[in-house]
Amino acid sequence: MTEYLKNIGERAVAASRSLNLLSDEDKNRGLVAAAKALVEKSGKITEANATDVANAERSGMSPALIDRLRLDDKRIKAMSEGLLQISELSSPLGEIVFETERPNGLKISQVRVPVGVIGIIYESRPNVTADAFGLCFKTGNAVVLRGGSDAINSNIAISDCIREALSECGICEDAIQLLGDTSRETAKEMMRLNGYIDVLIPRGGAGLIKTVVETSTLPVIETGTGNCHIYVDEYADIFKACKIVENAKTQRLGVCNACESLVVHSTVAETAVTEICKILFRHGVEVRGDERAREVLPEIKEASESDWGEEYLDKIISLKIVDSIDEAITHINKYNTKHSEAIITENPDNAEKFLNGIDAAAVYVNASTRFTDGFEFGFGAEIGISTQKLHARGPMGLRELTSTKYIIIGNGQIRG
Amino acid sequence: MTEYLKNIGERAVAASRSLNLLSDEDKNRGLVAAAKALVEKSGKITEANATDVANAERSGMSPALIDRLRLDDKRIKAMSEGLLQISELSSPLGEIVFETERPNGLKISQVRVPVGVIGIIYESRPNVTADAFGLCFKTGNAVVLRGGSDAINSNIAISDCIREALSECGICEDAIQLLGDTSRETAKEMMRLNGYIDVLIPRGGAGLIKTVVETSTLPVIETGTGNCHIYVDEYADIFKACKIVENAKTQRLGVCNACESLVVHSTVAETAVTEICKILFRHGVEVRGDERAREVLPEIKEASESDWGEEYLDKIISLKIVDSIDEAITHINKYNTKHSEAIITENPDNAEKFLNGIDAAAVYVNASTRFTDGFEFGFGAEIGISTQKLHARGPMGLRELTSTKYIIIGNGQIRG
Repeated sequence: MTEYLKNIGERAVAASRSLNLLSDEDKNRGLVAAAKALVEKSGKITEANATDVANAERSGMSPALIDRLRLDDKRIKAMSEGLLQISELSSPLGEIVFETERPNGLKISQVRVPVGVIGIIYESRPNVTADAFGLCFKTGNAVVLRGGSDAINSNIAISDCIREALSECGICEDAIQLLGDTSRETAKEMMRLNGYIDVLIPRGGAGLIKTVVETSTLPVIETGTGNCHIYVDEYADIFKACKIVENAKTQRLGVCNACESLVVHSTVAETAVTEICKILFRHGVEVRGDERAREVLPEIKEASESDWGEEYLDKIISLKIVDSIDEAITHINKYNTKHSEAIITENPDNAEKFLNGIDAAAVYVNASTRFTDGFEFGFGAEIGISTQKLHARGPMGLRELTSTKYIIIGNGQIRG
Repeated sequence: MTEYLKNIGERAVAASRSLNLLSDEDKNRGLVAAAKALVEKSGKITEANATDVANAERSGMSPALIDRLRLDDKRIKAMSEGLLQISELSSPLGEIVFETERPNGLKISQVRVPVGVIGIIYESRPNVTADAFGLCFKTGNAVVLRGGSDAINSNIAISDCIREALSECGICEDAIQLLGDTSRETAKEMMRLNGYIDVLIPRGGAGLIKTVVETSTLPVIETGTGNCHIYVDEYADIFKACKIVENAKTQRLGVCNACESLVVHSTVAETAVTEICKILFRHGVEVRGDERAREVLPEIKEASESDWGEEYLDKIISLKIVDSIDEAITHINKYNTKHSEAIITENPDNAEKFLNGIDAAAVYVNASTRFTDGFEFGFGAEIGISTQKLHARGPMGLRELTSTKYIIIGNGQIRG
């Protein structure tokens, strides 16, 4: 372990101990101060960002990525408002998850506490710096951030601004630390900072997540890619199916809860495929289907085996015809990424069967998969969508950034 | 990935899908059948065990370890009764963890579901084979077991017996699979069986756990070593302190919730150290203390820096004198393994301070650390004690072997 990272680790642990002693009011005061500072010092931030943007342009970054990197007053205001919103949420800390009194008189309660130190590794969007800090800080966690090298100047400016604001409130500024060194070696070392970082959350594309899962010796929460399916059952209301598929596929293309694959029961294939594809074609979506789908509509392209597992994030959708709900469930469980899946049906038994049989973080009846989102679920915040099964599954809000601790009150009990 | 492990992984996933469709009654029927079969076929099991014991004797295994390996009718009966007890516990599956209705009419509920496939890597005790199966099966999970090579014949006999019993009940026998190949290479591959195994739980000593954490690309639940402290506060009832330290140190030596270190406030050091050590010496416990402790009692040996972090699992305890509760908290947080820590005090403010300030799975006021245990907490079962902060912290019962799934019921909602 290099001295550089060990020092960051030690400071993060010390910060987490001091955050643990702050009240919710103290933390909200820190969030409000940080929110104000971002707006007040927006000049410094946009200046740093201009350097990043100039570097990116010189290195030939695509206009779409440069747009994600760019910060203006409006975007800085949005970051600031994000922190204010977090300050207004009620804190999950101290919540009693479970309690019991044992026959020997021991009073046992399991209470929500901060996790401790959270590491976040993310890609180009600099707004994650403020956003991730806000969620971790509200839940009493110190955060160690490692952003992409493209955004390093912007990230440092944002982090420095927040650190100053905390310090002025008398709060330990190491509640947020950002790695100034964005080398791969240092990132790799951060993924192995056992004893200092309690959990690592990668936020970014499939490649980043894979690297973190394979390299890290710390507990990781995988956030997710989504190969989301909509199954149009033989008892589907085709009008609902059309509306929902249109929304889930076309409302926003590049997101993990967008629909990437359609599964249609053969009994309704003729109408469903015709009606749904009419809408999709109107949106310029390419449909890649199996043999039977193409018999219904020759405009459908031929799907290859690899299409069933694809997260397109684009104007493409796959289409499979099945002869039973069981076949639909088996197909979806085989190819999905355990993110979000929906059935369109008016038959309660089939709805029930689908809800039980599908292995995914979120399973829908007659609604768009696009709702898998912390804000849409009413959590008021989101740090990511977990597609793994431990600790957190689905949209992660404040509660998912906490751990628990057993508190046991006795009056001299010993074990017999 | 070898074909051998891929095949095991595929069968485990298929088994987990079929377990997911069983009712709690079905599963209890399977547990009862397995419990009966263990007793009925105990001859086969003791025969296989005799081979393991003979091999162990030939290889010069210590008598204590051979005793852990040995199975007789009484121990097989205990395994069988363990399965019956599990069948009588109420299932956490289907429990609604959270529910909400959104303004758009979406009904969202978060329900407990099986994790899927659980991998368990353990050392010599063959009873873990039945025990781990029982807990995983009750919670609807398929289990892939990798026991030590010393117990391989016993483990195969137990696993085969359970598989036959399940099969006779019409339940998928792959609900339990045991690796017949106990090579290190195969174990290492099992730790990287992403896409098949959802979580890996190592059960054994610190060396095994370290290997798993460093090698695995699967989510791991670390179960724990325990360097547990008891802090005797300046407001301690010394009589309670004596009784509790005696129990926590001497009632059972080789367990993770035994007390390994004593921290005493200087104000009460004279009496507390004298009285407590009198009892510990009577039990043959060696006390290793700092300078000030040795000024009170010269029989106390000199502690070195390494003593503060040691989990002795033996008749040894370390002893540190502090001048304040804050110093005690800092010392404990520095050297503990985040397992179980206790304060002995009659002062509610100090109790509160200790409960908030200590970072551990279980924090006690005026009770023995030996209570950190699934049965003592009333869970009716235990798969281990987690010392990490994600998913499960502290004793893990049935609830900790589950995940959750969001179920969303709509009537055509789309995202605006």
